[in-house]
Amino acid sequence: MAELNETTGIPIPTIKYYIREGLVAPGRPTGRNQADYTEEHVRRLKLVRALVEYGGLSIAVIRDLIAQVDNPELEAFDLLAAAQKTVTQAKDPRPGPYKDGAERRLHDLLAKRGWRIRTGDPAYRTAVGVLAALDEVGRQDMLDVLDDYAEAAERIAEIDLGLIGDVRDRDRAVEIVVIGTSVGDTLVATLRRLAQATVGERLYT
Amino acid sequence: MAELNETTGIPIPTIKYYIREGLVAPGRPTGRNQADYTEEHVRRLKLVRALVEYGGLSIAVIRDLIAQVDNPELEAFDLLAAAQKTVTQAKDPRPGPYKDGAERRLHDLLAKRGWRIRTGDPAYRTAVGVLAALDEVGRQDMLDVLDDYAEAAERIAEIDLGLIGDVRDRDRAVEIVVIGTSVGDTLVATLRRLAQATVGERLYT
Repeated sequence: MAELNETTGIPIPTIKYYIREGLVAPGRPTGRNQADYTEEHVRRLKLVRALVEYGGLSIAVIRDLIAQVDNPELEAFDLLAAAQKTVTQAKDPRPGPYKDGAERRLHDLLAKRGWRIRTGDPAYRTAVGVLAALDEVGRQDMLDVLDDYAEAAERIAEIDLGLIGDVRDRDRAVEIVVIGTSVGDTLVATLRRLAQATVGERLYT
Repeated sequence: MAELNETTGIPIPTIKYYIREGLVAPGRPTGRNQADYTEEHVRRLKLVRALVEYGGLSIAVIRDLIAQVDNPELEAFDLLAAAQKTVTQAKDPRPGPYKDGAERRLHDLLAKRGWRIRTGDPAYRTAVGVLAALDEVGRQDMLDVLDDYAEAAERIAEIDLGLIGDVRDRDRAVEIVVIGTSVGDTLVATLRRLAQATVGERLYT
């Protein structure tokens, strides 16, 4: 375990915590207070750290994801869909006129762009909530350019999907979806901020 | 306060908590256990709720933002920059080869796109961390298409900046930056997921 700590830089108490929470498999015992760890342990530790630090995922969500990967009943396609849903935590909007308006607006957008409407999806429910919240705080200007944002998001989705094209390994495919979605959100958000500084100067100076 | 609760749907204990934490001004006392609240209180309550629910901001960060708005020493431009920095919580990368590689990669990207390099910025530091984490978990494929992601992010920044063009009111400008950045991240992330479902079908079925 001292070696694991040295290789990954993750503190030993954190490694123990990850093992206890079922995020990382225990090592193969080789004696009292001794265990063997493999490259697979190092890989998994680094993955969990990246998801916590830059993916914004909670330990509970990561545990759910790992349970899905370790469930042999799930076919690859269903596994990917399940992983995607787990990473996307839904926030349901409050019922009321803002919600109704947001739902209509989202339907129009999805129809216009030819996107699938799946009202039960966490992303769908969160989208309704975000649109309702923007309306409620008086940001109709953002709603007016919703289609522009959607077009940029579609471009990002194309880049995302281009990357999982020829992955054959089931576990690796899930890793790619999970990292791509969660850490990918942080990547896009961060690039957006870096771009804002420059675009702002171009436009206003 | 019962009326505030009725208008906004925010539970009274939550309203009291926001007032106690300095996020919302107290009402004008009109008697024992009675106070007057204005439209401004309703507006502010809805703003705080949107930032908590869909902007992913903590109470402490929102308190910092409000302190900046209420600081008359800050000029509008500095206020916007300060607000933007406060919304962007930096996560510094660990020193080491992954960090060094990420920094080189980010410099190349910024130079290629003509984006400003401000190494102290929270967004810059987080970008280095995200790139290092992606490298460390074996997602070089995402790094290979970094420029594509950056191009899409630049498009989003152009949409963002187009919206604050003719806002003259100082407080309203901050509101726009704060909502646009924090709730905007959730909007983009959510649209990305909705698009992925459709793009995935187009590509793979």
